[in-house]
Amino acid sequence: MVKCSSRNLDRTFAALADPTRRRILESLSRGDMCVTDLARPYSMSLPAVSKHLRVLEGAGLIRRRRQGRVHSLKLEATPMQEAQQWIEEYRKFWEGSLDRLDEYLKQLQKEESHDK
Amino acid sequence: MVKCSSRNLDRTFAALADPTRRRILESLSRGDMCVTDLARPYSMSLPAVSKHLRVLEGAGLIRRRRQGRVHSLKLEATPMQEAQQWIEEYRKFWEGSLDRLDEYLKQLQKEESHDK
Repeated sequence: MVKCSSRNLDRTFAALADPTRRRILESLSRGDMCVTDLARPYSMSLPAVSKHLRVLEGAGLIRRRRQGRVHSLKLEATPMQEAQQWIEEYRKFWEGSLDRLDEYLKQLQKEESHDK
Repeated sequence: MVKCSSRNLDRTFAALADPTRRRILESLSRGDMCVTDLARPYSMSLPAVSKHLRVLEGAGLIRRRRQGRVHSLKLEATPMQEAQQWIEEYRKFWEGSLDRLDEYLKQLQKEESHDK
């Protein structure tokens, strides 16, 4: 994997590692919003929200548009695609774990019904 | 989404936000390894590797087994499933962006062929 791509992954995963930033992305998935509307439901100060928005912008996950004094924010999900592709490589491992758990539970049930 | 699940997502995404930790997971996807074997290809000190391993353990992404003085490490991909499900909700947004880009490029080609 190229270095540039690795840096993008660093930024994307780091941006997603915070519940407030994930909630901001969830809000923007329902439509573009301005900064004050985003801050309201979380009772957050504008500087606190702005800090999270800068992290999301740095990761390319949101885009800011200035319309006079109002900053309108838009979700940009494209960087998530690479993150999703990285995680996808591990699907066989978690599916394998679930299969083994399922087999183990079936085995337990079988033993229980034999004991009765 | 419940709080506990949100904390798990915080830990998983934060653990994946570092290139060395992602490389450790990639190495473990090829089989269990001991700490010294993991440290070798990155020319890292054992304390530096151990710090990354603690983050991965905290996120439940690896499991450590002690066999005498040797610590054997195993990949545990299950927490990635939740992270993947969270990102998956945004697929329609990045696919939408790609569709729009595709349409734009087709439109450009069309205009170019008209100009010739």
